[in-house]
Amino acid sequence: MRIFEEMESEVRGYVRSFPTIFDTAHGSEMFDEQGKRYLDFFAGAGTLNYGHNNPLITDALIAHLQRGGIVHGLDKATVTKRAFLTKLRDTILAPRNLHYKVQFTGPTGTNAVETAMKLARLVKRRSNIISFTNGYHGLTLGSLAVTGNYDYKDETYGSRSNTAFMPYDGFLGPDVDTIDYMRRFLEDGSSGVDLPAAVILETVQGEGGINVASVEWLKKLESLCREFDILMIVDDIQVGNGRTGTFFSFERAGIFPDMVTLSKSIGGGLPMALLLMRSELDQWQPGEHTGTFRGNNLAFVAATEALAYWESDDLSQAVLRNGELIQKELQRIADKYPELDARVRGLGMVWGIELPQSGVAGAASAECFERGLLVETAGDRDQVLKLLPSLLIEEELLREGLGIIDDALGVLVEKRHKAIGG
Amino acid sequence: MRIFEEMESEVRGYVRSFPTIFDTAHGSEMFDEQGKRYLDFFAGAGTLNYGHNNPLITDALIAHLQRGGIVHGLDKATVTKRAFLTKLRDTILAPRNLHYKVQFTGPTGTNAVETAMKLARLVKRRSNIISFTNGYHGLTLGSLAVTGNYDYKDETYGSRSNTAFMPYDGFLGPDVDTIDYMRRFLEDGSSGVDLPAAVILETVQGEGGINVASVEWLKKLESLCREFDILMIVDDIQVGNGRTGTFFSFERAGIFPDMVTLSKSIGGGLPMALLLMRSELDQWQPGEHTGTFRGNNLAFVAATEALAYWESDDLSQAVLRNGELIQKELQRIADKYPELDARVRGLGMVWGIELPQSGVAGAASAECFERGLLVETAGDRDQVLKLLPSLLIEEELLREGLGIIDDALGVLVEKRHKAIGG
Amino acid sequence: MRIFEEMESEVRGYVRSFPTIFDTAHGSEMFDEQGKRYLDFFAGAGTLNYGHNNPLITDALIAHLQRGGIVHGLDKATVTKRAFLTKLRDTILAPRNLHYKVQFTGPTGTNAVETAMKLARLVKRRSNIISFTNGYHGLTLGSLAVTGNYDYKDETYGSRSNTAFMPYDGFLGPDVDTIDYMRRFLEDGSSGVDLPAAVILETVQGEGGINVASVEWLKKLESLCREFDILMIVDDIQVGNGRTGTFFSFERAGIFPDMVTLSKSIGGGLPMALLLMRSELDQWQPGEHTGTFRGNNLAFVAATEALAYWESDDLSQAVLRNGELIQKELQRIADKYPELDARVRGLGMVWGIELPQSGVAGAASAECFERGLLVETAGDRDQVLKLLPSLLIEEELLREGLGIIDDALGVLVEKRHKAIGG
Amino acid sequence: MRIFEEMESEVRGYVRSFPTIFDTAHGSEMFDEQGKRYLDFFAGAGTLNYGHNNPLITDALIAHLQRGGIVHGLDKATVTKRAFLTKLRDTILAPRNLHYKVQFTGPTGTNAVETAMKLARLVKRRSNIISFTNGYHGLTLGSLAVTGNYDYKDETYGSRSNTAFMPYDGFLGPDVDTIDYMRRFLEDGSSGVDLPAAVILETVQGEGGINVASVEWLKKLESLCREFDILMIVDDIQVGNGRTGTFFSFERAGIFPDMVTLSKSIGGGLPMALLLMRSELDQWQPGEHTGTFRGNNLAFVAATEALAYWESDDLSQAVLRNGELIQKELQRIADKYPELDARVRGLGMVWGIELPQSGVAGAASAECFERGLLVETAGDRDQVLKLLPSLLIEEELLREGLGIIDDALGVLVEKRHKAIGG
Repeated sequence: MRIFEEMESEVRGYVRSFPTIFDTAHGSEMFDEQGKRYLDFFAGAGTLNYGHNNPLITDALIAHLQRGGIVHGLDKATVTKRAFLTKLRDTILAPRNLHYKVQFTGPTGTNAVETAMKLARLVKRRSNIISFTNGYHGLTLGSLAVTGNYDYKDETYGSRSNTAFMPYDGFLGPDVDTIDYMRRFLEDGSSGVDLPAAVILETVQGEGGINVASVEWLKKLESLCREFDILMIVDDIQVGNGRTGTFFSFERAGIFPDMVTLSKSIGGGLPMALLLMRSELDQWQPGEHTGTFRGNNLAFVAATEALAYWESDDLSQAVLRNGELIQKELQRIADKYPELDARVRGLGMVWGIELPQSGVAGAASAECFERGLLVETAGDRDQVLKLLPSLLIEEELLREGLGIIDDALGVLVEKRHKAIGG
Repeated sequence: MRIFEEMESEVRGYVRSFPTIFDTAHGSEMFDEQGKRYLDFFAGAGTLNYGHNNPLITDALIAHLQRGGIVHGLDKATVTKRAFLTKLRDTILAPRNLHYKVQFTGPTGTNAVETAMKLARLVKRRSNIISFTNGYHGLTLGSLAVTGNYDYKDETYGSRSNTAFMPYDGFLGPDVDTIDYMRRFLEDGSSGVDLPAAVILETVQGEGGINVASVEWLKKLESLCREFDILMIVDDIQVGNGRTGTFFSFERAGIFPDMVTLSKSIGGGLPMALLLMRSELDQWQPGEHTGTFRGNNLAFVAATEALAYWESDDLSQAVLRNGELIQKELQRIADKYPELDARVRGLGMVWGIELPQSGVAGAASAECFERGLLVETAGDRDQVLKLLPSLLIEEELLREGLGIIDDALGVLVEKRHKAIGG
Repeated sequence: MRIFEEMESEVRGYVRSFPTIFDTAHGSEMFDEQGKRYLDFFAGAGTLNYGHNNPLITDALIAHLQRGGIVHGLDKATVTKRAFLTKLRDTILAPRNLHYKVQFTGPTGTNAVETAMKLARLVKRRSNIISFTNGYHGLTLGSLAVTGNYDYKDETYGSRSNTAFMPYDGFLGPDVDTIDYMRRFLEDGSSGVDLPAAVILETVQGEGGINVASVEWLKKLESLCREFDILMIVDDIQVGNGRTGTFFSFERAGIFPDMVTLSKSIGGGLPMALLLMRSELDQWQPGEHTGTFRGNNLAFVAATEALAYWESDDLSQAVLRNGELIQKELQRIADKYPELDARVRGLGMVWGIELPQSGVAGAASAECFERGLLVETAGDRDQVLKLLPSLLIEEELLREGLGIIDDALGVLVEKRHKAIGG
Repeated sequence: MRIFEEMESEVRGYVRSFPTIFDTAHGSEMFDEQGKRYLDFFAGAGTLNYGHNNPLITDALIAHLQRGGIVHGLDKATVTKRAFLTKLRDTILAPRNLHYKVQFTGPTGTNAVETAMKLARLVKRRSNIISFTNGYHGLTLGSLAVTGNYDYKDETYGSRSNTAFMPYDGFLGPDVDTIDYMRRFLEDGSSGVDLPAAVILETVQGEGGINVASVEWLKKLESLCREFDILMIVDDIQVGNGRTGTFFSFERAGIFPDMVTLSKSIGGGLPMALLLMRSELDQWQPGEHTGTFRGNNLAFVAATEALAYWESDDLSQAVLRNGELIQKELQRIADKYPELDARVRGLGMVWGIELPQSGVAGAASAECFERGLLVETAGDRDQVLKLLPSLLIEEELLREGLGIIDDALGVLVEKRHKAIGG
C-alpha cells in the first residue's frame, strides 16, 4: 500500500475502511491481489446495482471496443447514443407514461444536480432552492449548498446562499407532519424563506442514514409544490435504478417530479449522469451548459445492456424478495443484541441498521471487513450500517453477508461484556 | 437524427455543428453510419490527444475486461490504480523533479477545478480567488465563478462572489504588462481586490480563443504569487497532456505551480480527472471531499498506456514538428486571403486562426464539415477557428485537413465576392 | 402637496396613509398647517415614546444650542457625550446589574443591527446568523438578509446568504414549541443549518404584526444559545426604551442577551443608535467600524433628558396601567364587532388588533385618519392595526383615540352591511 | 476620560487622535472643557462645511424648537420638509438644469449608498456594480462590498459579491488611461466582469487619500456608461456640498450622473442623507425602501439655512480663493522639507499632503494636535495629511492652521536629524 500513502492525498476514504489492494471482481464478489475473497454489500456506493463485471455488459463493451466504436463523443450523435436513448424511451419512460427530455451532463452525480439547480433557477427566475435535512447532493459548490452535512463545509468556501433547509419526513419525530411546517413558511410572505424555484430531495436518504420518506409525505410535498408553483427535483442518483424495487424510487408514491437526476448505476458501472426534465422546462440555449465527458459512449453501451433488465418485471420482483429477506434478518439480528438499541429501516434493497451508540457502527464495519464483507456506515454521526448489495446478488451470498453482520455484532457485544467484566 | 431531437435537451451543442450520426473511429478519422469519413481536428475538445481507439489502449482495456479486473472502485486501492500511480510517478513526475501528491476527483474537469479552489481556500483561510479574462474552468457553480464567459451565467444562479478577474497576457494590448497592473491591485490594501488564496489560469487559453501567455508573463506571475503568498493553480485540463509539446503546459516557462488540474486526455479518452498539489498543501481530512466515480479503473488502464508515450522524447518532438507545419500552413492560408484579416496564433498542437469578421469562423467550420473535416470555433465571439488534432496524427492527414481549411476559406471569399459582385 | 409629488420619490409611504402637511406637535397631538389636530398613536414608529417636543428635551436642546455646545462630534469625546454615558450607566445599566459596553453606530437602527451582526461573526468566526419568521431588522443589505418580509427583497440585490430563518414563538400554532424545532436543527450536524454565530430577534415583533414571545420561549432560547455557544442579539430598537413596561423589553424574561441594539426613542426623538455588548465581545480594532454621525450631540442632550424618566418607577407603572386600559378597550371593541374576527394582542404599550379579513386593517387606518387619529398597520398582509402611543400620553387622549378606533370599525361594519343589504 | 474607556467600545477612533473632552465650538474653533482652543481642519469629516454652530442655522433651530415645529416626522409631509424641497429645487437643482427626484434615506451616508445600489439593481435587473480602487462608500454590508479598504473587511462577513473594482484615475500611474482598461473589460463578453447595473464613484476620493479624478477621465467615464447602458452613481457625500468649489463635485466636469448620494454637510451639521435620481429611475413601489429617521425635521431646518449660501456665487468664490491659498502654502511647506518627499494634491477646499514615509503623516497629525490644530490622515497606509476646513473659515485662521502644519513638519524633521545625529 506504500505508493498510495506516498502519492495519494490524505482525502482518500474508503481505502481506509477497506485496506487491501483489490484486483478482480464479479457479481457480488471481489478479490484482492492475495486472492482473498470479499462479499460486496456496498456495490460502489450504489453504482453496481447490476454487479461487478456483469457478463452481459462486459461482452458488449468488448464487442464495442473490438469493432472500433466511438468511445469519446462529446455531445455528438452516435449510433451508440441513439441505441441508449431508444432503450431508455422504450423500456423505461414510455411504459411509465413519462415524457421527460434527457440532458447528458458531465458523468458525475454532482454535475447532474448542478445542472438541475441551474435550470430550475433559469426557468423560474428565482434563486432560492429548498433542500432537506440530512440531504446529500454532492460537493461542488452548487450541490454543496443543498447538502446538509457540515463536515463537508468550510467558512472560506463561500456562503450557504440561495438555499433553505426544511425538515425531512420524520426529522421532528414520528408524530410531526413536516410538510405542514414547510407550508407555514411558504404561505407567510414574511417567513424569511423566499419562494423557491425548486425543492430537491432524495425519496430515501442514503448518505443521511437510510431515511425513508413515506408515500403520504411525498404526495403531500408534490401537492405543495404544485400549489406554490415550485419545481420538484428528485435526486435519484443513489436510490434510483431499481434500488427501491421500481426503476425510479418515486414510483411507489405515484408522483411525477419535474426533474430527475440519475447517475451511479445508470451507466452500468461506468461514469454517466443524466438529467430528466419535463419537456416544457427545456429552456436552455444551445451550448449554455456543457462539459467534456457528456458522451462517454462506453457507458452508453453498458447502460443499454443494463436497461434490458427492465424489459420484464423479474428484477423488481427479486429486489422485493431480497428486501424482505434483508429486513427479516436484520430485525432478527437487532432483536438478538438488545444492548445495541439497534433500529432497522429501509426499502427494496437499501437498508440501514442504526447502532446509536458512539462508534459501534464503525467498529461493526471493521469487524465485517475482517470477516470478508464490505459494508459502509452512513448518517450524521456515522451511526448507521448501510446495506447496498447488488440487486442481482444470489440469495446464498446475501445470507452469507447477513450472517457476517450477525457475527460481527456478536463479537462487539462480547468484547464489551469482557471490557465491563474486566 | 429524429430521436435526438425528440429526446435530447435543446442544450445540445456539437451535434449542431457536426450533424451526422457517428459510428466508428480510429486515430484521426471518424466514420458516420453511412460510412462517410471525417478528419477530426477537434479530438474530443482535447480529450483524444492519443487518437480515437488507440490500439494500445483498446487492447489493454479488452484485456482488463476479459480478466475480470475491477472496473468501478470508488477510492479503494486496486492493482490497476497502483499501476497508474507508479507510471505517473516514474514517467512524468520524477523525471521533472515534481513531488506532487495526487487527488482523484470526480472524472470531469470541473470537479478537479472545484476541488483545487476548495483546497486553496481551506489552506489559506481566504475566500478570494483571482481568475483571468477569457478563462474557462467549467460550469458547476464554483468553477463558473472563475469562468469569464457571460453566456454561461444567469443572474439567478447566484452572485459572482469570492473572485476577481485580472487581465490575461495581451488583454490590454501588446504593450501593456498586465502583471504590473495586477501588482498594483495586490500591493494597495484599498484596491478592493482582496488578497486571494490563489490564482487560477490556463497557460494557453483554449475556449477563450487560443491566447498564449508568454514565458515571461508566466514567470512574473509565479514571482508575484510567491511575493504575496498566493497559491498558483494551473488548469492544464485542455492544454496539458502534451498538447503544447511538453507533458505539462507550464514546463516551457520553468515554473512550478502549487496545484495542477488534469482531465481530458489524462484518461486516454475515458473520463478521469486529477488534482496535483504540493505535498504541504494536502491538508484534507479523510473523506472531506468525495465523489462516486473517482475510481474509474478502465480509465486507469487507458491512462497507464497513454503515459507510456512519455517514456521517450518522441512524442514531444512530433508535436513540435507538427506545430511548425500547422503554423506555416495557417500563416500561408492567412496570407492568401488578406480580405479576411486573419491572424494565426498557437503553440505545440493547439492553434487558432482568428477570423475577426462576424460569422466568418462559424461559416468556415461549416464549410469544413461539409468537406469532411471537424474543426470548432472559440473566443468570446466565436471568431477563432480552433485546431486541436490528435498529437499522433499522421502528417498526411494533417496536411489534408489544412488543405480543407484552405479550400473552405477560399469558398467563403469567393461567395462574398459573388455577393458583392451580384 | 404638489411639491412632494413633483420632487419626492415614489417610495414615500406614510405620507400616503396620512396625507396632510403637518406643522407643529406637542405630546400626543400633531397639527397640520390648516390647524387641524390629530392624535398620534404611531409615535414616529416608536421613536417618540416621550412625546413630540417634550418640553424637558426641547428646553435642554435650546440651552445647548444657545451656549454653543458641540453639535456634531464624530466619535470625539465631548462633555455632552460624557453626560449621556454617565446617565446611561447610572440610571439604566447599573441598577439592572448589566455591564455592557456601548458602541455608537450610525444613528439608524439598521446601522446598529449591521454592527451587531459583523461583530458576532468576527468574534465567533462563523458567518451564519439565525433570524426568525416575521422578524424585521432593517433594509441595508446585511440587515435585509435577516428581515423576513419578501416585499423588501429583489433577486438582483444578492442572495439571502449567511442566514437561516427559524419559526418564532407561535409561528407553527399555539401547541408547537418552536425552540424544540430549532434544537433539532442545531443538534444534527447534517441539518443544513450551520452552527450560527448568533441569533437575532425582537422579543415582541412590531412590524411583523405584534407577535409577543412568551417568557418561557425567551428563556428556552437563551438556554439553547448558551448550550450551543451561540450569541443572542436582542433587537430592542422598536420595543426597547420602555415600550413594554421595562426599559429593555427582555427584562420580563430575566434573560441577559449578549448584545442589544437600541435606536428610535433612545435619542429622545433625534437620530441615534447604540449597540450594547458584553464586554468580552468588544474585540473591535480601533476604527474598524466607523460612520459620520455617531456623535450627534443634540441627540445625546435629548437622550440624557429622556433617560431621567427612568430614575423612578413612575413611567413603568404608567405604561402598565395604560397597557391594561388599551387591552381592555381593544378587547371590548373586538367583542363588539364579532363579524370582524378581530384578535387583540400586545404588551405594555405596544398593541395590535388583528383584522384578518383582507383590506380591513388598512380601511380602518384610513377611517381613523379622517377622524383625526394616526394609527398604522403591520403584519405580513398588513392585517394588524398597530398601536404605539407615546408612553406619556394622557389617559383622556388615550381614551379618545381608542374611541376613534371603535367608531372607525363601526363605520366599516356598517358600510359592509349596507353593501350586502343593497 | 475614564468613563469613555470604561463604557465605550474599543472601536472608538477619532477620540484617540484628538484626546481631549470638547465642550463648545463656533465656526472653525473648538474648545475643550479646560477652555483650550483648537482650530478645526477636519470639519466633522466634511460635515461642517458651514462651520460649527453657524449662527444662521442655530437661530433657525432654536426658533423651530420654540414654536413647537415637528422634530421627527418619518416620511410624512411637513411644512419644514416642504421648505427644504423648495429651497433645494430653486437654489440648487433648477439653476443647474437638473431634474432629479429626491429620496430621503436613513440619515447616514451608507444608507444613501445602499439605497442607490438597490435601485440600480432593481431598475437594470443586473446585480453587478463597478466600484473603483481606493473608493470609500460606507460599512454596512452593501456599501462595504464597494469599499476598497480591506481593513474594514473580515472573511466571516460574507463574500465580496456582485461587485468588481476598476482602477481609479491615476491608479496605474500618470500615463495610463484607466478608462481604456475598463472599456476592454466591458466590451469583451468573456472578461469575467459582468455588465454592471451601475458604477459608483467619488469624483475626489477623500478617505482614499485625496485622489482627484481629472475632468477628462470623468467625461470619458460618463460616455462609457452611456455606451454600455450603465448607470453612473456619484457618491458626493464627502466632496459635494461645495467642498470642491461648486455645489456638486461633478459640475466641473459637465457631467450628469444618473444618481447622486448626498449626506454629511447637506444637513448643515445634523444627520441627513439624500439620494437624487433621474426621474425615470424612480421605479420604487411605495414603502419598498424605508427607515425611521428619514424625516429629521431639525436637519431640514438646518439644511434650508445652509442652502441659502448657494443663492449667490460668493461661497464658490471663497472656496476657490481659499483653495489657492492652501495649495500655495502646502506646496511651500512641501518644498521647505525636501527630505519628506511630500506631494500636494487637491481641489477647492479638500487637500492632501502625502508624506510617503511610514508613520510621518500620523506623527504630523499628533504634533498638530499638540499645537491646537485638528487634522486627520487618509490613504491606504494613512500616509496623507488631509485638510477639510470649513468652507467659511476666515483667512486668518486658515493661515494660522497652515502655519501649525509647517511647524509640526519642521519639528518632525528636526527630531529625525537629532535621532540620526545622536
